[in-house]
Amino acid sequence: MNTALREALVTQPTDREIRVERIFDAKRERVWKAMTDPKQVAQWWGRGNKLVVERLEVERGGHWRFVEHADGQEHGFEGRFREVTPVERLVQTFEWDGMPGHVILNTTTLEDLGDGRTKVVAVSFFFTTEERDGMAASGMADGLNQSYRALDALLAREP
Amino acid sequence: MNTALREALVTQPTDREIRVERIFDAKRERVWKAMTDPKQVAQWWGRGNKLVVERLEVERGGHWRFVEHADGQEHGFEGRFREVTPVERLVQTFEWDGMPGHVILNTTTLEDLGDGRTKVVAVSFFFTTEERDGMAASGMADGLNQSYRALDALLAREP
Repeated sequence: MNTALREALVTQPTDREIRVERIFDAKRERVWKAMTDPKQVAQWWGRGNKLVVERLEVERGGHWRFVEHADGQEHGFEGRFREVTPVERLVQTFEWDGMPGHVILNTTTLEDLGDGRTKVVAVSFFFTTEERDGMAASGMADGLNQSYRALDALLAREP
Repeated sequence: MNTALREALVTQPTDREIRVERIFDAKRERVWKAMTDPKQVAQWWGRGNKLVVERLEVERGGHWRFVEHADGQEHGFEGRFREVTPVERLVQTFEWDGMPGHVILNTTTLEDLGDGRTKVVAVSFFFTTEERDGMAASGMADGLNQSYRALDALLAREP
């Protein structure tokens, strides 16, 4: 059993969703900051690759755009915030430049576990099952675990 | 019967779609230009209201953003092109600033009727049935018919 959730628990609760659960050893406010402060995001989201945070307007209607530099290539990601409820919940769209117009709706919930830890639940909602299956087959879980381990390291480094 | 399709024929073929059919008295290349040239779009898309075309990058991955000025207010709309097949087909996302993150996928097909007329079929695909129903209830068909009449006028004015 992965009760400590040190690896992300990835499930498919419906035919258009991917659900990810992961626990971090930090208080909710701390995890929120790591997810919404551009300088902090740049330290973990790119899984060790250089990440340029071009925009990160954490408010309803705000846009975000990150460019990851890996193996001499640039990979752009962008979207817009549908809902921002500080320290609790972010709802935002997600689109990779490589598949423009294939928009995913991501809902991230931060749950205070009361013991200094925070459970993050991230649900990705796709337009179609085909897009969901494509994402699931793309090595998404590995990439996610790399990002989350980099986030662990940031939280340990800057408590 | 609306065989001439001078009013848009609006149907709901599935529980997440709205389908619109409309015939224009112009050749396909002419209609395509009216839909993709920023100066031309500014003349009809806003239904007589001032429209500022901030971006219109008609290519895969390109962004578009229009701001309609009406009754002293600004209404922004934006999205990104998933597919561009000149004179035949445009697939693009659509998002209104008033409901950020509620992305709609629009597929517009231009069919050459061979007699100097062009049939436009526009299918809007929503994340959820609720969003589809909200759009259908918003007076979308009226707005669309106003835009299309303005497009008729442009096509007659600049054949």
